[in-house]
Parts: sequence; C-alpha cells; structure tokens
Amino acid sequence: MTSRPFQRLVTLLCAIPPVLAVMPAAAASLGGPLTLEDEGSFFVNGQSFRSEYPGASVATGPAAPGNITVNQMYVHYRIPAGKKGIPLVLVHGSNHTGMTYETTPDGREGWATWFVRQGHPVYVVDHSGRGRSGFNPTPVNAVRDGGADPKNLPTFFLGPIDRAWWNFRFGPEYPKPFPGLQFPLEALDQYLAQLVPNSETTLAGGGANTVSALAALLDRIGPAVVMVHSQSGVYGLDVVRKRPNLVRALVSVEGGCETVTPADIATPFVKVPFISVWGDNSIGAKGANGDKRREGCAQAIGLIKGGGGRANLLLLPDVSIRGNSHMMMMDRNNLLVAEVIRRWIGENVR
Amino acid sequence: MTSRPFQRLVTLLCAIPPVLAVMPAAAASLGGPLTLEDEGSFFVNGQSFRSEYPGASVATGPAAPGNITVNQMYVHYRIPAGKKGIPLVLVHGSNHTGMTYETTPDGREGWATWFVRQGHPVYVVDHSGRGRSGFNPTPVNAVRDGGADPKNLPTFFLGPIDRAWWNFRFGPEYPKPFPGLQFPLEALDQYLAQLVPNSETTLAGGGANTVSALAALLDRIGPAVVMVHSQSGVYGLDVVRKRPNLVRALVSVEGGCETVTPADIATPFVKVPFISVWGDNSIGAKGANGDKRREGCAQAIGLIKGGGGRANLLLLPDVSIRGNSHMMMMDRNNLLVAEVIRRWIGENVR
Repeated sequence: MTSRPFQRLVTLLCAIPPVLAVMPAAAASLGGPLTLEDEGSFFVNGQSFRSEYPGASVATGPAAPGNITVNQMYVHYRIPAGKKGIPLVLVHGSNHTGMTYETTPDGREGWATWFVRQGHPVYVVDHSGRGRSGFNPTPVNAVRDGGADPKNLPTFFLGPIDRAWWNFRFGPEYPKPFPGLQFPLEALDQYLAQLVPNSETTLAGGGANTVSALAALLDRIGPAVVMVHSQSGVYGLDVVRKRPNLVRALVSVEGGCETVTPADIATPFVKVPFISVWGDNSIGAKGANGDKRREGCAQAIGLIKGGGGRANLLLLPDVSIRGNSHMMMMDRNNLLVAEVIRRWIGENVR
Repeated sequence: MTSRPFQRLVTLLCAIPPVLAVMPAAAASLGGPLTLEDEGSFFVNGQSFRSEYPGASVATGPAAPGNITVNQMYVHYRIPAGKKGIPLVLVHGSNHTGMTYETTPDGREGWATWFVRQGHPVYVVDHSGRGRSGFNPTPVNAVRDGGADPKNLPTFFLGPIDRAWWNFRFGPEYPKPFPGLQFPLEALDQYLAQLVPNSETTLAGGGANTVSALAALLDRIGPAVVMVHSQSGVYGLDVVRKRPNLVRALVSVEGGCETVTPADIATPFVKVPFISVWGDNSIGAKGANGDKRREGCAQAIGLIKGGGGRANLLLLPDVSIRGNSHMMMMDRNNLLVAEVIRRWIGENVR
C-alpha cells in the first residue's frame, strides 16, 4: 500500500480535472465522438459436441441427435483510429454479460467506449455459456425428452433484487441505499434488465471454459491488459497462469484472489502487474463482496510483493473516492474510477 | 412482381458498381472508417417477476424467492455522425442473436455497421429471452429444486449442424453445398459458434414478448424501418399491426408471412411498404425456409397489393443475384444484397 507507484497514483489522482467527477446529462451517451478503425465481433474456443437431445423447435418439432457447438466465447471489439495504447480485455462477473461495460443504466458512457476514446483497442466478452455465447441445452433437454434424472439439471442462478441489492452493495438491505451511494438507483429497472442466469453451468467445466477462451483470445490478439470483475477475478488469475507472457497486467475489480498461493509467485505473478480495486462499504458487508474477498486480495498482494512482483490494493475511499458500489463501472463517478485505472496501467505496463 | 417500383429497383441494380460484389480481404472487417455520434445499449420491455426458484449460485448457494426481471429486450444502437437516413431496427431469427448482423463468420463487414456507414441509425436487438436478453430460469429450477414435473420443462432448441445445413440452405444435405453457394463455408466453425438455444421458451408468451418489446422500442426511438429474418418474420407483421404509424417499412428476409389475412389489409398493411426477400435454392427446399413459406409470402403480397398497398416479393435469382443462402446477411455478396434493400427503402420510405 505504500509502494512508490501507488503513491504516484495517489498524487496523480489529485490532478484529475474535477469535470470528470460531474458528468452533465447529454443527449448522446458518449462523452465525445467515436471514430473507429474497426469494430465487430467473433468467437473463440468453440468445440463440437454430440448432442443426443438438441430439443424441439416450437415451429418444426424435435431435432435428431447431432453436433452442436459449445464452450465458445463471444468477443466484441472496438479498435480506435489513430495512435493506439495497449489493448484491454474486459470480462464481466456473475449474472452479467459484456453489457456490464457498455452504456450505464442511466444512459451515460460506459468503460468500453471510454477506454476506446482514450486510444485503447477494447475487447468485451460474454463468458462462455452466457449471453451471446450460447449455452449447452442438452442437460435440460435430456431430462425433458430423455427421462434423465431431474437431479442432474444444471442450476440456472439469477439473483433476485433483494439479494442483488446487498450483494452488489447498493445498501445494507433492500431497498435502503448506503449514504452517498454513487450507483444510479433511479435507473434500477434498466440495471436489473441486464442480469441473466448463469447458464455456463450447462457446460462441462463451467467457468473453466471462459479461462480457456480468454487464453485463446490472447493467442489471437496478442499482449493485452485483462480486466476482470467479481466472479471472473479467479478466472483472471488462471489466465495469468496460462499466459504469463501475454497478460501485460491484471486489473481485478472486486474479484476474488483466494487462489493465489506461494507456488504461483515464483513464476507468473512476479512478471504481471496486478491491481485489486475496491469500492466503498465493503468493510463488514455481507455476501461475497465483503471482508473475506477483500482480505484475501490483501493477502495475495502481500504474497506477490513478497516475491518481488508489483501489486496494489486500491480501496477507493482511501484516495477519497467515496460511495462506489460493486458495480463501479456503472456508478455516477464511473469515469473517474476508469481514469484511476488508466493511470495505473500507464505506470505499470511497459 | 411487375410494379413500377420493382422495375426501377431492377434497373438500379444494374448500376451497382461491381466492386460491391467482390470484396477484397482486408485487415479490418469494416469497409471504411466508422465515425459515430453515439453508440451504446439499453433495454426495453422488462417486467418484474416473482421467482420462487431463482436457482443456486455455485459460489454462494441457493437464493431465496424474490423478484427478477424478465421479458426485456437488449438493444444495441449505433448512430452515425452527420446527415442521417431513416433508422433501421434489425431483428434476427431462430437460434441466433443480434450477432446475425455483425461481422460475418469469415471476418467481413456485416449489415449493422454497413447501414450505419450509409447514414442510417441502426438498432440491433436480441429477442426477449435470448442472448443478452436474459431468460427466465424459474421453470427449470422449479423442476430441479421444487419437484415440479419434468414434462413442464421448456424446450431449449438448438439445431445441430446436419439440420442447420439444409434448413439454412447451405446445401441439399450435410455436408454437400449447393453449386455456387455464397455462404463462406470455410468459416463454418465461426458461424456455428454464434448459434444459441431458443431460451425464450422459458417466458410466458414466448416470442410474443419480442413483439411487445419491438413496439416499445419504436415508442422510444420513433419511426423506423423494421427488418426481420426467418422466425421473426411473423413478429414483424405483428409489429406492423401494433404500430402501423411507426413502422415506415417492413423488410422481411425469408420471414414467414402466413398470418397476413384480408382483415389486415383494410388498415395497417396498406400504409406500410413491405418487401419479402428470398435467396437462391428455396424452390423445392426442405424445411421451414422453402416453398411453403415463400408461397405464403407471395399470397400475402397479393393480398396487400389487392388492397392498394405497396409490396414486393424479391427472389434474388430473378435479378441475377445467385447462390444466396438463408443467411444472406453473411454471404460473400452480403453487401450487394444490402444495397438492393437500401435502394428499395430509398424508393419506398418517405
């Protein structure tokens, strides 16, 4: 917490123009024009799977067994025109999709396009098995059409609002907000609409497919900074282990760090700068996004630094950025948080 | 088939520069720079739903009953800088998401960005209950966790490659292609990766939610041309019935027309220009995308014209555009087909 890079970060922070902290409402969500050299989408990590139960079309009836594609990951890329910074890969968390990083619920600019407008090629993904990365319908259809045991059904978890409220740290209990909360609660309906079931549970290996897919993405696009959030924190750690020469830095937005062990430190983590970013009100918070996870990250950072690596725990209130929720990429001051991360990247990525 | 507008269309077609039909491979997928006044995403049509079985998180265990959001539709918009044409709403078909209209499987420009580069604000959606529009996990979790009858499980249909092959008219039987096929089969893996299960079957009302959501989208953005594909053909007809004053034209890419009746003609369809676009090899084709659907569209067009409306059946081989599959927005000559549609819009939308 007292490393020179971190101190410089705090110093730089004081120089951020205050306009960033107060974004006026605008007709357009973007804070400025966006000129793209390229924009589009592709998939990585798809594998052919023989499905005995591909389901029945409402219009045309049951399909015979055959091969479908599973484990693929949808990648949406935006490449800015002109001089380019290091590419960023943005990875969402549980119950979310890449929409996490797009327009905020109240219609302001999200991190995806903002980082593009700062010159970074940006790759936003949907976890394998989620969103535009299709899931495997076979385990459900096997119960429906093939008499398999319902106990084998995958779980499709979608947290109700009461749970999302405290888990994502909008407040201590639904519907009470934390004082000074930066999350735009007036657009809560838009936010809840972006939540999706965790359908990667239909895939053999579950979330491990997203790790493989992220490694495949780096193999395709080359070195990049990987940003992970919440559930995908541990995915990011696994990607560092798999591709230590392609992850230029790992930015973990309230992601778990519990899998970092002394065995890791000898090799990948000493090479890959790491920052664990935390919002407000996590101390004493109930649920997954509180003390246990944050303290685990503090321990991991201690391990990495002890091994000679570069790592920071950034608790935003420590640098006077207050009121941030677990969904800080959507908070009112989301671009201030993004600017802090951008400066850390600038300092730590060669 | 012999209306003056259609004849003009054929005449104009001959003036399309041949470069459009032969797109050279490029490092970027876009055929030119893209300068956006705005770009982002939002949801329409979300409704709160009390879920007794919201599932169990792999990390944190079962969730108590509570309210989740269902029926919402994800909308991704791109607004070009400068002078603007009529907005377009692009709607995909069965087993697909909005990815239908993005980069082609072989990495060329798709219709979404191409129409933006021609000056149209473009809104690409994921059907309610599909892709980034989350589905309702409750009917599955009720069987898994609540002892409900497995017969009540929704069907998650995902057509295997053998079926996709002939249904989407890549060839008569897998893996034999039609002679002169325009679909980029060398990128078949990328194409198959974009297919997803039809998870809108988890929603009460199924596809009807997408119709309501499209009406809500038009209420938000104002008059637009609606383009539908395949499964969503009949959704487009219902949107015309719901919002005859907001649909400026309906472009149906091999969508079904079977719900058009003489009762419709007195009101909405006489006001809303309609074109039904067909690729090659549909005559005698097996599956949903053959004679029955096409002849149904010919009948519907006859009805609309008989009632004084403007309607065209455009069978691409009739204007010497050959080899197109059901997925013509991804075919090698996809931008030639787009140009034909753009000219029809220019002639028919005031």
